[in-house]
Amino acid sequence: MSDQPLTLSPDRLFPADRTTRGIARELYAAVRALPIISPHGHTDPSWFSLNESFSDPATLLLAPDHYLYRLLYSQGVPLEALGVPSRAGAPDTDTREAWRTFAAHFHLFRGTPSAMWLNHVFVEVFGLDVRLSAQTADHYYDVIDAALKTKAFRPRALFDRFNIEVLATTEGPTDTLDHHHAIARSGWGGRVITAYRPDPVIDADHEAFEGALEAFGDITNLDVYSWKGYLEAHRVRRADFIAAGATSSDHGHPTALTADLSGAEAQALFSRVVKGQSSVEDNELFRAQMLTEMAKMSLDDGLVLQIHPGSFRNHNGPLFDSHGRDKGADIPTRTDYVRALKPLLNRFGNDPALSIIVFTLDESAYARELAPLAGHYPALKLGPAWWFHDSPEGMRRFREQTTETAGFYNTVGFNDDTRAFLSIPARHDVARRVDCSFLARLVAEHRMEMDEAAELAVELAYTLAKRAYRLDAPPMADPARQHA
Amino acid sequence: MSDQPLTLSPDRLFPADRTTRGIARELYAAVRALPIISPHGHTDPSWFSLNESFSDPATLLLAPDHYLYRLLYSQGVPLEALGVPSRAGAPDTDTREAWRTFAAHFHLFRGTPSAMWLNHVFVEVFGLDVRLSAQTADHYYDVIDAALKTKAFRPRALFDRFNIEVLATTEGPTDTLDHHHAIARSGWGGRVITAYRPDPVIDADHEAFEGALEAFGDITNLDVYSWKGYLEAHRVRRADFIAAGATSSDHGHPTALTADLSGAEAQALFSRVVKGQSSVEDNELFRAQMLTEMAKMSLDDGLVLQIHPGSFRNHNGPLFDSHGRDKGADIPTRTDYVRALKPLLNRFGNDPALSIIVFTLDESAYARELAPLAGHYPALKLGPAWWFHDSPEGMRRFREQTTETAGFYNTVGFNDDTRAFLSIPARHDVARRVDCSFLARLVAEHRMEMDEAAELAVELAYTLAKRAYRLDAPPMADPARQHA
Amino acid sequence: MSDQPLTLSPDRLFPADRTTRGIARELYAAVRALPIISPHGHTDPSWFSLNESFSDPATLLLAPDHYLYRLLYSQGVPLEALGVPSRAGAPDTDTREAWRTFAAHFHLFRGTPSAMWLNHVFVEVFGLDVRLSAQTADHYYDVIDAALKTKAFRPRALFDRFNIEVLATTEGPTDTLDHHHAIARSGWGGRVITAYRPDPVIDADHEAFEGALEAFGDITNLDVYSWKGYLEAHRVRRADFIAAGATSSDHGHPTALTADLSGAEAQALFSRVVKGQSSVEDNELFRAQMLTEMAKMSLDDGLVLQIHPGSFRNHNGPLFDSHGRDKGADIPTRTDYVRALKPLLNRFGNDPALSIIVFTLDESAYARELAPLAGHYPALKLGPAWWFHDSPEGMRRFREQTTETAGFYNTVGFNDDTRAFLSIPARHDVARRVDCSFLARLVAEHRMEMDEAAELAVELAYTLAKRAYRLDAPPMADPARQHA
Repeated sequence: MSDQPLTLSPDRLFPADRTTRGIARELYAAVRALPIISPHGHTDPSWFSLNESFSDPATLLLAPDHYLYRLLYSQGVPLEALGVPSRAGAPDTDTREAWRTFAAHFHLFRGTPSAMWLNHVFVEVFGLDVRLSAQTADHYYDVIDAALKTKAFRPRALFDRFNIEVLATTEGPTDTLDHHHAIARSGWGGRVITAYRPDPVIDADHEAFEGALEAFGDITNLDVYSWKGYLEAHRVRRADFIAAGATSSDHGHPTALTADLSGAEAQALFSRVVKGQSSVEDNELFRAQMLTEMAKMSLDDGLVLQIHPGSFRNHNGPLFDSHGRDKGADIPTRTDYVRALKPLLNRFGNDPALSIIVFTLDESAYARELAPLAGHYPALKLGPAWWFHDSPEGMRRFREQTTETAGFYNTVGFNDDTRAFLSIPARHDVARRVDCSFLARLVAEHRMEMDEAAELAVELAYTLAKRAYRLDAPPMADPARQHA
Repeated sequence: MSDQPLTLSPDRLFPADRTTRGIARELYAAVRALPIISPHGHTDPSWFSLNESFSDPATLLLAPDHYLYRLLYSQGVPLEALGVPSRAGAPDTDTREAWRTFAAHFHLFRGTPSAMWLNHVFVEVFGLDVRLSAQTADHYYDVIDAALKTKAFRPRALFDRFNIEVLATTEGPTDTLDHHHAIARSGWGGRVITAYRPDPVIDADHEAFEGALEAFGDITNLDVYSWKGYLEAHRVRRADFIAAGATSSDHGHPTALTADLSGAEAQALFSRVVKGQSSVEDNELFRAQMLTEMAKMSLDDGLVLQIHPGSFRNHNGPLFDSHGRDKGADIPTRTDYVRALKPLLNRFGNDPALSIIVFTLDESAYARELAPLAGHYPALKLGPAWWFHDSPEGMRRFREQTTETAGFYNTVGFNDDTRAFLSIPARHDVARRVDCSFLARLVAEHRMEMDEAAELAVELAYTLAKRAYRLDAPPMADPARQHA
Repeated sequence: MSDQPLTLSPDRLFPADRTTRGIARELYAAVRALPIISPHGHTDPSWFSLNESFSDPATLLLAPDHYLYRLLYSQGVPLEALGVPSRAGAPDTDTREAWRTFAAHFHLFRGTPSAMWLNHVFVEVFGLDVRLSAQTADHYYDVIDAALKTKAFRPRALFDRFNIEVLATTEGPTDTLDHHHAIARSGWGGRVITAYRPDPVIDADHEAFEGALEAFGDITNLDVYSWKGYLEAHRVRRADFIAAGATSSDHGHPTALTADLSGAEAQALFSRVVKGQSSVEDNELFRAQMLTEMAKMSLDDGLVLQIHPGSFRNHNGPLFDSHGRDKGADIPTRTDYVRALKPLLNRFGNDPALSIIVFTLDESAYARELAPLAGHYPALKLGPAWWFHDSPEGMRRFREQTTETAGFYNTVGFNDDTRAFLSIPARHDVARRVDCSFLARLVAEHRMEMDEAAELAVELAYTLAKRAYRLDAPPMADPARQHA
């Protein structure tokens, strides 16, 4: 098993049927080299402002990637052995030892997108040509570690090499955006923009809500404990983010609930929330109302509104206590969209000037709820297959279950949604291959003409994301549309 | 893109794999020309009684088809621009202009069943041979408009040309059925039958319930405000409908809930409902009880009972206010069948003399709930993939997820369920192609023999619908089975 | 249709595409003849202890198999005509007549796994070479009946011929296990083990709960009406079962709910339950708490914990009244796992020494809930496609929807879960073919290398089940891990 050759087939992910594969190849050839539009992700802007070398293979590729360590953990490997930090800080695990442990368990990833992404990185980014295993672990560590120390592997060089046209990071409402400002001042040509994710000052169930709210007041110099001042603080920060390139806001809520309260009701609710007198239901309703408030602001300043609902965060209580958030224990739940989105959609959903992009972790909603909603409301579009469903089978199900009702033009292209910077080209490549394969099937079954599929392949790989996220014309306030 | 040839591949919708495609071709060749059985639909009986020419392309094909205008609306095209009537009446949009707007957006339908159906109509019904686009919009309008003015395109001529053996329309409980009577008297041989849809006098949440109930009393000369008189009025009207060819009743409820109340409970509930003293829960329970009452009547008069649950009607409040019902804003919801159908099935589900056909908009119920229920209860059968799921992928999922538990013989063939008369042959053709493709896969994978698949192809295309909807022997009361 | 040849294609269930089929063939050739590991099933241990001839074709193959008679019943065939026993006992239906009725309706099974399993049995076990139909019913009856009277068709001979390495039966908490003891004493080499299914003394909603509890006290000589004595009785019986080869317990609950009550709360709840003072909610909570109690005992004695939730038992009230349980009227329901399993997983889910195997009848949970949970918690693994989903399409969906998030190694191979002894080789053969086909697609699409697929094919067919059910090293108490 050791030292077996590692290659990437040029036909990977294409259907085996010869006719269909031939069509997929042709479609893919025309989109393979298109620039990458990454309108939603979680890379660290300091990488691009400081442009320092990444430290080592394990710290770069393994320790921060919960896709990887969750599966090893599920098979009994302790997180400490992989160098994953706990609340007490990073363990003193030797990074080479951590890498060896990972390599010895790499077979666990057979059939997963992680294996495809990593092999793509190994071959395309680092030029490796044998498979990762216990036997080749040190070879891998040495090759990657040596590469990372060179200038060609610094963040900006990789950004350019990856042919990224635009990359969005995600920042909280109290972020100074200093790194984005530094990037802008640096003269480097890479377009790294931010996105406004105000969850910390909206989710009163979060353990750090109180502190975040205080910092929100400090950074805006506004009275964020009054409803008026709080909303104004959002407007101010949205403007700051727009100045740092943002074209979207992003909202990760437990459910898709929205609300459309009267001004007085909203103010009373807010008052309970900031006084710490709110119930669990109040907090849910407040998040719901804030989606509608954000939509209202979007009609003024043009930010695209992204809703990412349906994750049960920190499901593993003991692990949360020892290691904190984002340790692979966020589990999707059944999610209603029909009743949940009605207040927001009935208030603003008929306005084509608004753009709401909704994601799901509950695939049963694709054909039943989301495609019918997006195929009707002018303001609503469907985000791509997300998180656990950002995978070949997940993307295929997304297209099969949404296209017939919502069409292709109510979808928004691909999001990589990742903090694993090196895997961004691999992820976009998988999406392009899967979409071309889906289109190829439609052509092979005479459900679409080749020229239509060719047009759509470019839309799905490049144009739809650029248009949906308004990356051509940055958003700006239209005074004629002000909502008082 | 303009003036590109439009053709229909003889292999459309067949799997690309050569072996499987060869089998699908052979199966399809034997069912392609079978007469159309359309046991459930929404065409207008006046078309066939009056046999007048259809007015123009936009008014015939576009304005009444919410499958079409909903997708254009979702991309920001105002309904007015398409000639869709509002509560104020039809807009004064020029029909040629409306058609041009539609043509310019026809790419939105790529990958949707609407595109397949329309292209079928364009080629097979109108002989068009270039694709619809902004450039060819006027050519299309002229060709279709000219055709519609000829005798060959009058409703009865098309009915005959389409090889329709029987076509069911749907009428409400206060309909005089005059058009059906006129068709019967006319001497024309086309079999156009009605179906009994009593929702307007059963759904007390409907804004027109009160008026419908009054009209129900008027047309039956019965005291419909007494429980006994109300039930008798249903019996009377069912008999009227049977006399006009009906073999089924149809019930479109928000949920699949059924109830089996005692006589006294039912009477008390009815009393609250007609006095306007009923709660939302009462109204839901009344609809539930009425399904069981209808089943009881079916055991007497032989009507097949169709249940279509799970649509959240008029989701778009502002659009409902401006344009009224049925404007593309009905959205499917998660639907329970297991608990909901238990009262009805426990009362009558073991009686093979009863035929209940249940539909779903919630595909997650296919394998989990509906196939197990239909694979057990003698009275229950599964309606075909419905509404948003009446599509190639939707039909494929229906077969893949129901067949292994319910078999083919607990399904009822295809329903077109449409008001788009010209598309009926296209819709049946899609269903036949998809079913033959599914059967071909089973044969190619040696899960079924070719002669079995050939038998089943005919069943699915023709015989099952005829048998399930009792279209050979019209229903009649069997005195030996009267339920007092 | 009559006397048509019956053959089993060597390529059955393999994808039609030539490349993929070639790969599937190669993978399957290496696992086809592996011994059968059957870690979960419902065969009768008396067959193997007494080793008497089976009586006749209908009594062996038809009357006990609710997969078969439920589908005939759904098409109006009375259960009496098939020899299915009611509460009044077995009907006096002539077994040959019952068989003829079955044969005349065999076309109903087209496209179902039952047809595949039966044809496999007919060809491989009985050497039949014409298809079953009304015309061949008597021929079938004669051939099978004659074979059953020979020594070669006695249970032990078939067990050996089927190449079964280990077969688990399922017994209740008051079973004496005499048949298992007799098998052990007999000197016959077949490994037939038991599994501990304590539902009768855990489910207070069951009509026989009170009697079962009394018998539980009798067989253990413990005070099972005290919480301490009740738990001790479980420990005692688990030890008895382990002595009879058991490596797992099995729990069939209406939902997946678990609880982690304090000792005092649990004791108070138990007290209400045994006094007959418990509410429906109490009974649900008691079942939930007992799963956590069983997990605690598993950490002491090593039994694997199986949870089979989500069936609505005895949905057909009238049939339950006339015929009792297990008559094909158990219907799956929507099932939550995320909230339901949290108490158990938060208590014990991080311990790799525990093995919990969870099954589902709600496929919508595969990708949304179960794969993410199993891909994180060390103690949790996914049981195979179960019951209605133990079918080619069901298995395919299982792999497509779980692999990308949970991988293959968090699954546990195949369970036949059957009382239809003769079909066990057929069922494992279907599973092996479907898994090899899935792997073949991954190889053909260059998502996995051939050597990896070959390794996995053996894991899925043989090794994973053996490992997950701890069939190499029988469980035993580890004194160092005692939970007081």
